[in-house]
Amino acid sequence: MSGVPVAGPFRPVLLEHASRLVNHGPTVLVTSAHGTRRNVMAAAWSMPVEFTPPRIAIVIDKRTWTRELVVASGAFGICLPGPGLADVIYAVGSDTGRELDKFARFDISARPGPVLGVPLLEAGCSAWLECRLIREPHVEDAYDTCFGEVVAAAADERIFANGRWSVHDDNADLHTLHHLGAGNFAVAGHVVKARPV
Amino acid sequence: MSGVPVAGPFRPVLLEHASRLVNHGPTVLVTSAHGTRRNVMAAAWSMPVEFTPPRIAIVIDKRTWTRELVVASGAFGICLPGPGLADVIYAVGSDTGRELDKFARFDISARPGPVLGVPLLEAGCSAWLECRLIREPHVEDAYDTCFGEVVAAAADERIFANGRWSVHDDNADLHTLHHLGAGNFAVAGHVVKARPV
Repeated sequence: MSGVPVAGPFRPVLLEHASRLVNHGPTVLVTSAHGTRRNVMAAAWSMPVEFTPPRIAIVIDKRTWTRELVVASGAFGICLPGPGLADVIYAVGSDTGRELDKFARFDISARPGPVLGVPLLEAGCSAWLECRLIREPHVEDAYDTCFGEVVAAAADERIFANGRWSVHDDNADLHTLHHLGAGNFAVAGHVVKARPV
Repeated sequence: MSGVPVAGPFRPVLLEHASRLVNHGPTVLVTSAHGTRRNVMAAAWSMPVEFTPPRIAIVIDKRTWTRELVVASGAFGICLPGPGLADVIYAVGSDTGRELDKFARFDISARPGPVLGVPLLEAGCSAWLECRLIREPHVEDAYDTCFGEVVAAAADERIFANGRWSVHDDNADLHTLHHLGAGNFAVAGHVVKARPV
């Protein structure tokens, strides 16, 4: 991929529409911060669990630095990277942020979330969700599965507006990525429509 | 979409590779059976939670007939439909199987799973996973989230072989679907490769 992604026109997403942002299984970047430390990692394993209130589940390995920051702060961010960030996703997903600041290392810009202050990416991304951790110690321990409630969300209006995705050739830089494994990402860039029922 | 999907050459998938089948967030068909009753529904909300042993989480609303069958039988199937089944996915996801057999209603062929006997679709699908429910009453109740361990899996070797997805123009009938909402499915049909790290 070429070029440095820039941020598009992000607009707030209504909370009742927030789960739609991750309905189709995109690979995401998970952001976290506590005190003076922050981190960003990649996660292919997340899903909504409820529309209202908007809640999601995400797998964050207990050995990761992100997990420590999320539990300590009670918050995490989810950002949906486009194709221009494929190298970054793979790089931040293969490295630990314990000894370095991955934002600085990979030249990633972030803004603080409006409610919880988690770092959020917009450049090269289609959307973000700011989430409050819902403590569920048993499933966190047994399955590395963390539940969160979305407290704020926003999307680039070129691809998600009025609660709906609009995927077409003109917004290819914002199409979501879906990790097949080994750094290969399927791009969700073509749409088929089912017959109405 | 046109034509009646036919089953391709399905081959067993090693259990340590099974979670890779749903790593990229496809919308799936969830199958279930208990006694003489069976059902199939659509689910956009599922994810792996572990590679070894292969475990997944899936949201199945407690009000659904599927949930009753899954809890009663302790088993469920996950099938990955291709574009030719878009209409079927949307139809079975919009109807209940309490009063009718959706397999018969929508002319869906199924074979019994090798370990637990759950009905599994192959025609028009790229892969299936047969899962044993792991009882977690609290998260089932609070988040409609059901955990399962994969006990058998298979895939059409034209798109998944030796533990790896191979997505290209020649197997477009097997590309996975990712529900954007309202019957619109993004097709995971184009691949970008990240720079090795």
